[in-house]
Amino acid sequence: MRALVKTKAGPGMELQEAPQPACGPNDVLIRVHHAGLCGTDLHIWNWDSWASQRLKPPVTIGHEFAGVITQLGPEAEATGVLAVGDEVTAEGHIVCGHCLQCRTGSAHLCRRTQIIGVDRDGAFADYIAMPESNVMKLEGIATEIGAIMDPMGNAFHTVFETDVTARTVFILGCGPIGCFAVGVARAAGASLVIASDIIERRLDIARTMGAHVTLNASSDDVTAQIRELTDGEGVDVVCEMSGHPSGHAQAFAVARLGGRINLLGTPSQTTEVDFARDIIFKGLTLYGVTGRRMYRTWHQMQRFLRAGLLDPLPVITHRFPLESFTEAFQVIKAGKAGKVILAIGA
Amino acid sequence: MRALVKTKAGPGMELQEAPQPACGPNDVLIRVHHAGLCGTDLHIWNWDSWASQRLKPPVTIGHEFAGVITQLGPEAEATGVLAVGDEVTAEGHIVCGHCLQCRTGSAHLCRRTQIIGVDRDGAFADYIAMPESNVMKLEGIATEIGAIMDPMGNAFHTVFETDVTARTVFILGCGPIGCFAVGVARAAGASLVIASDIIERRLDIARTMGAHVTLNASSDDVTAQIRELTDGEGVDVVCEMSGHPSGHAQAFAVARLGGRINLLGTPSQTTEVDFARDIIFKGLTLYGVTGRRMYRTWHQMQRFLRAGLLDPLPVITHRFPLESFTEAFQVIKAGKAGKVILAIGA
Amino acid sequence: MRALVKTKAGPGMELQEAPQPACGPNDVLIRVHHAGLCGTDLHIWNWDSWASQRLKPPVTIGHEFAGVITQLGPEAEATGVLAVGDEVTAEGHIVCGHCLQCRTGSAHLCRRTQIIGVDRDGAFADYIAMPESNVMKLEGIATEIGAIMDPMGNAFHTVFETDVTARTVFILGCGPIGCFAVGVARAAGASLVIASDIIERRLDIARTMGAHVTLNASSDDVTAQIRELTDGEGVDVVCEMSGHPSGHAQAFAVARLGGRINLLGTPSQTTEVDFARDIIFKGLTLYGVTGRRMYRTWHQMQRFLRAGLLDPLPVITHRFPLESFTEAFQVIKAGKAGKVILAIGA
Amino acid sequence: MRALVKTKAGPGMELQEAPQPACGPNDVLIRVHHAGLCGTDLHIWNWDSWASQRLKPPVTIGHEFAGVITQLGPEAEATGVLAVGDEVTAEGHIVCGHCLQCRTGSAHLCRRTQIIGVDRDGAFADYIAMPESNVMKLEGIATEIGAIMDPMGNAFHTVFETDVTARTVFILGCGPIGCFAVGVARAAGASLVIASDIIERRLDIARTMGAHVTLNASSDDVTAQIRELTDGEGVDVVCEMSGHPSGHAQAFAVARLGGRINLLGTPSQTTEVDFARDIIFKGLTLYGVTGRRMYRTWHQMQRFLRAGLLDPLPVITHRFPLESFTEAFQVIKAGKAGKVILAIGA
Repeated sequence: MRALVKTKAGPGMELQEAPQPACGPNDVLIRVHHAGLCGTDLHIWNWDSWASQRLKPPVTIGHEFAGVITQLGPEAEATGVLAVGDEVTAEGHIVCGHCLQCRTGSAHLCRRTQIIGVDRDGAFADYIAMPESNVMKLEGIATEIGAIMDPMGNAFHTVFETDVTARTVFILGCGPIGCFAVGVARAAGASLVIASDIIERRLDIARTMGAHVTLNASSDDVTAQIRELTDGEGVDVVCEMSGHPSGHAQAFAVARLGGRINLLGTPSQTTEVDFARDIIFKGLTLYGVTGRRMYRTWHQMQRFLRAGLLDPLPVITHRFPLESFTEAFQVIKAGKAGKVILAIGA
Repeated sequence: MRALVKTKAGPGMELQEAPQPACGPNDVLIRVHHAGLCGTDLHIWNWDSWASQRLKPPVTIGHEFAGVITQLGPEAEATGVLAVGDEVTAEGHIVCGHCLQCRTGSAHLCRRTQIIGVDRDGAFADYIAMPESNVMKLEGIATEIGAIMDPMGNAFHTVFETDVTARTVFILGCGPIGCFAVGVARAAGASLVIASDIIERRLDIARTMGAHVTLNASSDDVTAQIRELTDGEGVDVVCEMSGHPSGHAQAFAVARLGGRINLLGTPSQTTEVDFARDIIFKGLTLYGVTGRRMYRTWHQMQRFLRAGLLDPLPVITHRFPLESFTEAFQVIKAGKAGKVILAIGA
Repeated sequence: MRALVKTKAGPGMELQEAPQPACGPNDVLIRVHHAGLCGTDLHIWNWDSWASQRLKPPVTIGHEFAGVITQLGPEAEATGVLAVGDEVTAEGHIVCGHCLQCRTGSAHLCRRTQIIGVDRDGAFADYIAMPESNVMKLEGIATEIGAIMDPMGNAFHTVFETDVTARTVFILGCGPIGCFAVGVARAAGASLVIASDIIERRLDIARTMGAHVTLNASSDDVTAQIRELTDGEGVDVVCEMSGHPSGHAQAFAVARLGGRINLLGTPSQTTEVDFARDIIFKGLTLYGVTGRRMYRTWHQMQRFLRAGLLDPLPVITHRFPLESFTEAFQVIKAGKAGKVILAIGA
Repeated sequence: MRALVKTKAGPGMELQEAPQPACGPNDVLIRVHHAGLCGTDLHIWNWDSWASQRLKPPVTIGHEFAGVITQLGPEAEATGVLAVGDEVTAEGHIVCGHCLQCRTGSAHLCRRTQIIGVDRDGAFADYIAMPESNVMKLEGIATEIGAIMDPMGNAFHTVFETDVTARTVFILGCGPIGCFAVGVARAAGASLVIASDIIERRLDIARTMGAHVTLNASSDDVTAQIRELTDGEGVDVVCEMSGHPSGHAQAFAVARLGGRINLLGTPSQTTEVDFARDIIFKGLTLYGVTGRRMYRTWHQMQRFLRAGLLDPLPVITHRFPLESFTEAFQVIKAGKAGKVILAIGA
């Protein structure tokens, strides 16, 4: 089969012929139909310091995907839930099930997490084997949408970690996950959704996804405008999706007394924080978002998608066949794309 | 009557004769029996930058107190709850009741808060007038204890903002509030309470209050020892009570994946934070503690004190008559005291 | 001024001339523009066993209203929030502020609650005096809508006592509060809202308010249809708004394992409950709804109404001048009306 | 090996020779050291209507146990967490992992639950095979204690489903689970723990476990005394552990306005409930307890037991070798025992 592989330390990747993965007793083998390209994949391509410390080549890349089950291991078959021919997607964090985090509702923080496409072979390939417990049936959701439920799940996790109904929400950063977050907050009955970015193309998508107000952080006085939009109060909830150090300062500046900041964007530098002024005297709550709640987040997504409460299609801006992976990565690098999809099988 | 007054901009205070405060329609007049001296009072004495920006002398100082009701305004009388002769204490944050925070369960963060002894006349005086809604009957709690329910409430607020039962808790900083927090966490069934400070006298008090383990941050490797005490996991909950910039770094280092840091100590400098490593990848929650939940915190204190679940007396290390206020302030300045009490009336 | 008064024990009411109410130090005097007629008012009219035990005639009736401030007591003026000319509505439960419930976030359950129009003079009159703490500015919400925020608040309280976003919700009973609840659940992103009643006119309103599916309990097999609509699972949340004993049995039958039933409708008879089968083995949570969360519910309503997330107008089916009160009560008695409004002043 | 088997429809059980259970790929084989006898086992012995509808003989009985791992299936071995020689206990509910409940944090309510000793072979035998995901290491907890963590977990689940710290708690029914609940509530800092039963022997155990007050429901006026003990308020939390219909009426009578009733005891009859008076006007929350939170409850137990916060030994009143099972069942039938232990292996 074809597989996009990080073959060795250093930049780049190679599309190779590889053996079909073995399907263990608890596994299902999945024919990949669509996969999503992620900023993490670009870090791996670029072989930055995070990637070089974490990956052990050769590794097949890719962690966002959906496809069709072609084989089940005997134990996976015995559970009687999944079957050959089922259209499915999967949580890409494979966890131990035994640690404190796994046992107490925080499996997304398992210390022994293995991420597909990072710590073990991933989904930019014709086939992938996944533990059956990580696999979910799409039941009517298209595989192209199933392929982006991983990043969409980051957005659901970020937005739903606090109540947003009847509240004012600021989405700081309109990459694909930020744009999903806009749609999620709107569908959940946020009374005001403000979105910011420095790229107009992204603000266009955010408006399509339902932002009441968009602000261009390179030209608008974001803090002043948010104050004005909220009667001087600031917003109830900030979703920090940019990872830019200036994002943190802005998040603190616009969160209201008693507000909440959910942090998803991962900065590459440290930030100066005035704990007294910015957190303690404001009575703020901060929360760091990793992955997706296993599996509450997936359940919420399925409900939203099947009920038509969220249409993620406007976020998808590019589609490429697997062979055009170099072009796909260039689009990501250019920084103006929404979600980029690889069409792999059918 | 006597009143300890910040008479003018600059260091120091003066004990003066002052008129008894007026008792408005919604007020009760309280003969002060005991009052507690707080770090905030020292900031005011020293006239630091915070104090000089906030206070408008002349102001009678003091916000921690208990005493006996001597008079009620007609509306306070009409509610029928309080009466002359009742032993009482009071919440020192006087709030508007109408803002978003007041209306949605966060009155402790009211934007229009007036703090007694800071924004209006306080309790280091023979009498203080308080709105009846801020006043609570002691019903068997001694006035000396009632006088320190304000800072004890900071400890309850900090500890109870998350579940500590069956959890590991690290109290970082053993000033009076930290020592109260040790006792609160123990009484609530924390499975391990670790306390740190750099002053042995304070660690002694923390042990008396129930700390399973105390660590001297100037000689022990706190992070290594906490890792060892928690099977390498880190603690579930950190209560940051020191306000020292190194406290934040230590809090991040010892909080477990998915853990929580409740921040009470107010640092005078900014701190460098690695949001990706310290908050996002760890899935941490941070919460800034201001004041006391109005009035859930007070209710919890009354229950704990009346049931004998918490004995705060070991935290009180010094008692002075009002006239010895200079000596009392010197004890606070020396930085080794627990709680310092002023005996004012009877 | 005019006032609709329960003058004596027994059925009926009288429209009388009455003195304008006194405006106490903490009160505001409000010129009533619109008021809502409620099932409770009908109980009072009919002088049923509840009414005869609770009311002490003479009492001016009416607890749902909105109008304009014409006078402020000196303490109400001093808070600086409200002013003559403000369009306002008010929470009709006047609470003590000191009991366990008031002090711990459940003021709606205050043991000393005085309800306007029941325990003290109410709003079916040209003027009403209210404590300023119970009064909220409409700021752009029409007084006709402000007049029904009391029952709308019951709906918000019922729906928002659990998370309904991405969940399936069954509104059992489509009186005015049930119809509001349909709209609230839809706006908050419920993935499926099913509503039932036995009167087609009410099901029409429920559909207008956004119900995905309506069921006529007199002709449809409600349980079977809900099972089918939910893949055999049952619904996540039942809002019992009918108060009919059969409603409880149906609620238990259609709530899913681990589901929740919020109970608002007040039955006049007892119900047989199989605790083992219906609650324990299903792991259900039940919650009894009284009044409105003070004041979180009001804040949520303001946000929803100002953001256009809920349009309550379709629920209003009748409008009468105060003089036509007899006709208004007859419409309520007939049991087919939505919300009935009295236009009182301007 | 020996196994206590329900061989056929009808009362009684037989101790038989049986083949050692097969150890599947995901299973561990456990040499049973101690097992606990439960009311459920008595229902099976008696072959009551529940048992006759649910069990399909032959079935080895017993669901509470602890022992030592003697073998691991290859997939269980691969996870690297468990090893031969580990002292372990296990959750007896074997769940599907895929249903709505399993995916959203309520696996204890999985619709496909298989209970050991009921739906498949259980633990009153020399060996039992269990899926590795259900197995937890004791790490210092004695196997005799490990054997009763299943019912102790029911107590933890019941008590910890709401906050009991600084609250008043009424444990209604002092069978073994009620007695555990007394100890759990005390250790978690309940300010008042009242326990009731009609058997003095059980009230003795409840006092040993820490009840502040015990009431004999056959001679004391429970409602009146609880009102008096709580200043007329009623208790914050009722844990209904009796399953007696009169228990429900009493629970409603003594729960305070805004209180909570957690229901564990399973009545064999229906109860009349006045929903308006007992639930809605009181603003009560009810919760039905099934099993143990998987696996938060187990984690809490491990923490409490290892920290010495709970000593369950006083609840164990009888110990028998497996061969004396008839005698053990007679002790249970007599209704005066605490926990009854079978010593099986070593």
